[in-house]
Amino acid sequence: MATSKSKKPAKSKSKYKVIGTRPIRHDGADKVTGRARYGADTKLSGQLAGYILRSPHAHARIRHVDISAAVVSPGVHAVLIGSDLPEQGDRIAELGEGAVNMRHLRSNVLAQDKVLYRGHAVAAVAADNIHLAEDAAKKIVIEYELLPLVLDARSAMKPDAPILNDDVRTVEFGEVVSDSPTNVAKKVLFETGDIAAGFASASVIVEREFSTATVHQGYIEPHASSAVWHRDGRVTVWTCTQGSFTVRQQLAELLHIPATNIKVIPTEIGGGFGGKISVYEQPLAVLLSKKSGRPVKMILSRTDTFEATGPTPGSFIRVKLGADSSGRLVAGEAWLAYEAGAFPGSPIGPGCMCIFSCYDVPNARVEGYDVCVNKPRTNAYRAPGSTNASFAVESVIEDLCDQLNIDPLAFRLKNAAREGTRRVDGIVYPRIGLVECLEAVGTSDHWDAPIGPKSELKPATPSANGHAAVPVYRPSNLKIGRGIATGYWFNAGLKSSATVNVNFDGKVTLLEGSTDIGGSRAALAMILAETLGIAAEDVNPFVVDTDGVGYTDVTGGSRVTHTTGAAVHMAGLKIRDQMRELAAQIWGCPASKVKFKAGQFNGPEDKSFTFKELAARGLHHGEPISASATVNMDTCGGAFGAHICDVAVDPDTGKVDILRYTVVQDCGTAIHPSYVEGQMQGGAAQGIGWALNEEYFYDAAGTMRNSSYLDYRIPTCLDLPEIETIIVEVPNPIHPYGVRGVGEVPICPPPAAIAAAIHQAVGARMHDLPMNPPRVLAAILAKES
Amino acid sequence: MATSKSKKPAKSKSKYKVIGTRPIRHDGADKVTGRARYGADTKLSGQLAGYILRSPHAHARIRHVDISAAVVSPGVHAVLIGSDLPEQGDRIAELGEGAVNMRHLRSNVLAQDKVLYRGHAVAAVAADNIHLAEDAAKKIVIEYELLPLVLDARSAMKPDAPILNDDVRTVEFGEVVSDSPTNVAKKVLFETGDIAAGFASASVIVEREFSTATVHQGYIEPHASSAVWHRDGRVTVWTCTQGSFTVRQQLAELLHIPATNIKVIPTEIGGGFGGKISVYEQPLAVLLSKKSGRPVKMILSRTDTFEATGPTPGSFIRVKLGADSSGRLVAGEAWLAYEAGAFPGSPIGPGCMCIFSCYDVPNARVEGYDVCVNKPRTNAYRAPGSTNASFAVESVIEDLCDQLNIDPLAFRLKNAAREGTRRVDGIVYPRIGLVECLEAVGTSDHWDAPIGPKSELKPATPSANGHAAVPVYRPSNLKIGRGIATGYWFNAGLKSSATVNVNFDGKVTLLEGSTDIGGSRAALAMILAETLGIAAEDVNPFVVDTDGVGYTDVTGGSRVTHTTGAAVHMAGLKIRDQMRELAAQIWGCPASKVKFKAGQFNGPEDKSFTFKELAARGLHHGEPISASATVNMDTCGGAFGAHICDVAVDPDTGKVDILRYTVVQDCGTAIHPSYVEGQMQGGAAQGIGWALNEEYFYDAAGTMRNSSYLDYRIPTCLDLPEIETIIVEVPNPIHPYGVRGVGEVPICPPPAAIAAAIHQAVGARMHDLPMNPPRVLAAILAKES
Repeated sequence: MATSKSKKPAKSKSKYKVIGTRPIRHDGADKVTGRARYGADTKLSGQLAGYILRSPHAHARIRHVDISAAVVSPGVHAVLIGSDLPEQGDRIAELGEGAVNMRHLRSNVLAQDKVLYRGHAVAAVAADNIHLAEDAAKKIVIEYELLPLVLDARSAMKPDAPILNDDVRTVEFGEVVSDSPTNVAKKVLFETGDIAAGFASASVIVEREFSTATVHQGYIEPHASSAVWHRDGRVTVWTCTQGSFTVRQQLAELLHIPATNIKVIPTEIGGGFGGKISVYEQPLAVLLSKKSGRPVKMILSRTDTFEATGPTPGSFIRVKLGADSSGRLVAGEAWLAYEAGAFPGSPIGPGCMCIFSCYDVPNARVEGYDVCVNKPRTNAYRAPGSTNASFAVESVIEDLCDQLNIDPLAFRLKNAAREGTRRVDGIVYPRIGLVECLEAVGTSDHWDAPIGPKSELKPATPSANGHAAVPVYRPSNLKIGRGIATGYWFNAGLKSSATVNVNFDGKVTLLEGSTDIGGSRAALAMILAETLGIAAEDVNPFVVDTDGVGYTDVTGGSRVTHTTGAAVHMAGLKIRDQMRELAAQIWGCPASKVKFKAGQFNGPEDKSFTFKELAARGLHHGEPISASATVNMDTCGGAFGAHICDVAVDPDTGKVDILRYTVVQDCGTAIHPSYVEGQMQGGAAQGIGWALNEEYFYDAAGTMRNSSYLDYRIPTCLDLPEIETIIVEVPNPIHPYGVRGVGEVPICPPPAAIAAAIHQAVGARMHDLPMNPPRVLAAILAKES
Repeated sequence: MATSKSKKPAKSKSKYKVIGTRPIRHDGADKVTGRARYGADTKLSGQLAGYILRSPHAHARIRHVDISAAVVSPGVHAVLIGSDLPEQGDRIAELGEGAVNMRHLRSNVLAQDKVLYRGHAVAAVAADNIHLAEDAAKKIVIEYELLPLVLDARSAMKPDAPILNDDVRTVEFGEVVSDSPTNVAKKVLFETGDIAAGFASASVIVEREFSTATVHQGYIEPHASSAVWHRDGRVTVWTCTQGSFTVRQQLAELLHIPATNIKVIPTEIGGGFGGKISVYEQPLAVLLSKKSGRPVKMILSRTDTFEATGPTPGSFIRVKLGADSSGRLVAGEAWLAYEAGAFPGSPIGPGCMCIFSCYDVPNARVEGYDVCVNKPRTNAYRAPGSTNASFAVESVIEDLCDQLNIDPLAFRLKNAAREGTRRVDGIVYPRIGLVECLEAVGTSDHWDAPIGPKSELKPATPSANGHAAVPVYRPSNLKIGRGIATGYWFNAGLKSSATVNVNFDGKVTLLEGSTDIGGSRAALAMILAETLGIAAEDVNPFVVDTDGVGYTDVTGGSRVTHTTGAAVHMAGLKIRDQMRELAAQIWGCPASKVKFKAGQFNGPEDKSFTFKELAARGLHHGEPISASATVNMDTCGGAFGAHICDVAVDPDTGKVDILRYTVVQDCGTAIHPSYVEGQMQGGAAQGIGWALNEEYFYDAAGTMRNSSYLDYRIPTCLDLPEIETIIVEVPNPIHPYGVRGVGEVPICPPPAAIAAAIHQAVGARMHDLPMNPPRVLAAILAKES
């Protein structure tokens, strides 16, 4: 997975000076020298270690808790149980990321009367060190009444299924539609056109069912936080999170503290992918600090992280598509059930909105369910809900193409969503770039090459038809195949803030509140540099704490470079205005006579200052140059991608190897192409892991049996070829620099693209993720039999 | 020194809701519970301890330095000598606080070819711990050539005096006026009117000479800093300083690093009083970190702090005043020589501007000299230069009053500077409050009471004339007396910035860059609260690092509450505007229809939001509310005070006890009266120490023999009565809330007020500070003989 080449327009064509270049990231040196401080690196005087005791059962009622032995255990300073968390009543709170049922959040942080999944937190202990804390926790006696459990959505929807939450009723269009407790928390329904007439006009109809497993975001850094409760009721929390303001708001609501009294200091973050938005250990660290009067640090183990943070939902999806004889889609129907985990909140909504999002499906119906099961409460994972849906719909389209004998690329080009296409949920697309991505697939080196690893192909090997490629690479008895698939993500807008200060050395400081997961500090600095006409290196970007900048929503939804970037651009415009006024003051002319162009302030009589010269004059003239700007954007414009995948399948074992992989994606304007490519590669790698190997493997008792990276198989660089990238740039009309979100789209296509490639290789259609060797072997054998 | 009562106008008259109240300071809880982090509290992974080797000689040439044994000493990671500091050439740099000779600053941080005072830093060592560092430092072999030394200004001005700096020439009005090296770095001259005619018209002329000793600011916390050199050349410094931006600028200039690459994080500060502006150990910590690759922490000892940081100058002052028979001042002449210490830079300029600043002296001449001597380079100390001058001129006025047989209060009221008075340096006063202060003296409890401790006076004891009070208190054989004196300080303006963010809970975060020495966080929060119509407790103020807010000059010159306060007020106005726009958006009306009044936003049709209600709506509407504001103010308006002092003198020992002490001062509008009173009390306490006991006691070799708090006698609470305060409020016309600087004025009057009281008690005039028992006894004996 070395840096891949990008099919960008030639550099000389760019209208930008900084945007599109590849400066060294500002936070790079600290990260490669170990100076950067991550969640577990906080060191406070007198700090205690916090340990969380977790449920050994997947579903049980807590009959009695006895902490008497724990509180007198050596070195123990504080013990918490569920009732120590303030009561929430029947309350929905706005956490900046949508409404959250506070009773459920409270119960997830520390179980109240029931445990709903193996690993559910039931108590917490702060002690002089982690060993003493763990020893003490083991002395807590909990009397459980075991309850039957349910681990998959369809079982949990049955009338006789064990009910997880007595307070859950089905909600449809905001209305409660069930009378009694249920595991079905939500029903989603979208309809457009005339579905019956649509299918009636179809020449070919394909209907298939799919399942996907629960998978984890797989960030390298487990959750880690430290907290200090100050004697005046203020709280300071250091934590690795995707959203410091979201943590602040969750803590405020959970602990009944004014948000202003909470300072959340985001540390560097070793990956999040959606999984580091909810609070887990943070409220416990705060309360343990309050009880003990000491700082408390808590670090989750890898097993804790698997068992008790929020993976993406396992799902069941049925998709039916019809096309006419010309290969035009005429109707689509989908039924989805997503596992919410212990408490409601799966991304069933986005799943339903995304499932037909890449196509113009004039008549469609989508029905989806959010279903509680005895697994950890699910959480966002890169394009949440979309990958599951993409796997299903793209696989059905492959089948349609086969039956119609149409080239899958041609079929997709014919039916692709474009500007003006109306999605099943009613959204009409603005300018989007799916067609351009599909065209880029068609003109790519990969599409035109024989199937096989790039490195082993002779450069001169010609190919008339890339898709039905000449198989020059066929080691031993492996079967090879190629597949493509598309993917979509909305991208989010939301609120962002930025502050810019100009220093007398002509450099500027940029403060922003979006935690930097994928290189956003560099991208935001480049946006500011472009706006001010200075070098990227002359911007010093900082991710500050919740007191250090205006409110900023979570790093997620691929929104940071777009939306925080827009705030940064606006702050840059204000800085330009202030500097024009400074120049005007020095020159004794009205500010309107000072024009800014390409980093230069030009005044009357050929007077001019470079940005640096004018900044230096600030030592003696005018006020300090400083500006804050804020934005609230509804959306940041959807993005699409298309992937090409070559696989080799071992027919004797069912093992699938990725031979070659190309990610094509419309990124709007690519601010820092290296980090855009990194997002494309990283998303594809995660999608490949999800497709081939990753899954929560549960036993009958609801215990995950593979909760370590030894057994939970994330692909390593040994498993993957260099992932090639082709950046397509269809500028986003609603952004000053045309930025679209990049991070999420690339996880969506891999499962379907790989399934298509496997089908080409061995002729078997895959319906279930992960497509691990036993499953693939079974499919091969089933087909042969 | 418990909190004193204030003679404020009755609360009900105030036009303010928050200003003038006494909320608990926002940083109080952390400070009283030990949670606040001071200079020495920084703890970094892998940090080394830095030790500074200092000169044992007051004046010597460095012939040779051999560090070979030190670098191989156990646990040593880096050794620095003078040549490790980048060369500066003949360079004057702007450090935001005026121009600084960089060669001198470099030589002060680490001696180059000469040592100029005992304690002058000559080398620095970083090692695993401070003991290993000190051991290694002792292995550094330095060959010194001893030179003759000079310890007082007048001796140093003689033609045959040993010359400290070969590069120093006398500068007058910006022009070099000496051909050869000299210790006289600067000559100041102010003239107004016709001095000869003035004295010719005088009925009485008094001319006397005064000396004051070198005294230290006496902050409790010694200097302490930690530094990290990052591999990409960026630097992070934690330090207790009065000016984080000034430290940044000094480090940038000294180390040739762009200021933007340096992050200075100001810790809490345990006192500064002017002494924590220059850098001492900070550049060494940075370079040791660069050499070692590890964080380095350096803490100065108390002896280091005395011997090698910047005390206030010792001085010699001659004052001649003439008054006509009606008691009107007709002429004044002053000659001042201030000890700069090792390098030029004493506050001789301010001293010359302040000396006649309290009076209307129509014909005046002031001549002053900045003179290098073999003492540490002096630095600012609370109203720098003014206390020395005030002691001299106020003492001469007492003498004039005696000779004219005029009541000293009446004399001062007659001659007091007021709006329109032209100072000797040409400044014409705007609205000032000296007359009001003197009137408040006349109507004070103290002035009207018999001499003696307040607690021992019977409340009913009447007194026809407070000044010639009935001596009801006369234990044993002590002699008692009362004196008054006035004092003045300009107050500085300079640059400040502030950023305000509104949170959804209706509270606001305030970011500012002025380190909080005397409660300014509380005062600034109150200014913002007043502007926004919310409670002081609803503002969460933070002193942030140099990247966290716009450029802000040093905490000094009594400028913070005034100037940073003005920036905070301006940011508050911007916030109000943004919130009016938010309300307009919600109500669907133009922003011009939304009026703000007393914390309420009022719209059309009786619609209204409280600040809190509107802030909460920000979760769903509009952009985040955030504003930055910056100011650059030429001045913040002068301030005056008058002190009343009762003393008891033991005629057998010369020991002087303060029986009662009242500080009267025009503070403009007192934002937080408790901290205003605290400043008045603290300044008076320091002035009393300076008057009675404090001095650098040097032996013939130039070694300070009392460099510990055991021997350097700062007054403790056992030495002082409760210092009473009377706040006079003459609003400052140039400030939105009428604020004047408070902190510096109260140090000026004590020496003269005490001298006047001693004179009344024992009939002897005092000419030299400190007025310690041997001096007072000598004066009594001289008078008796």
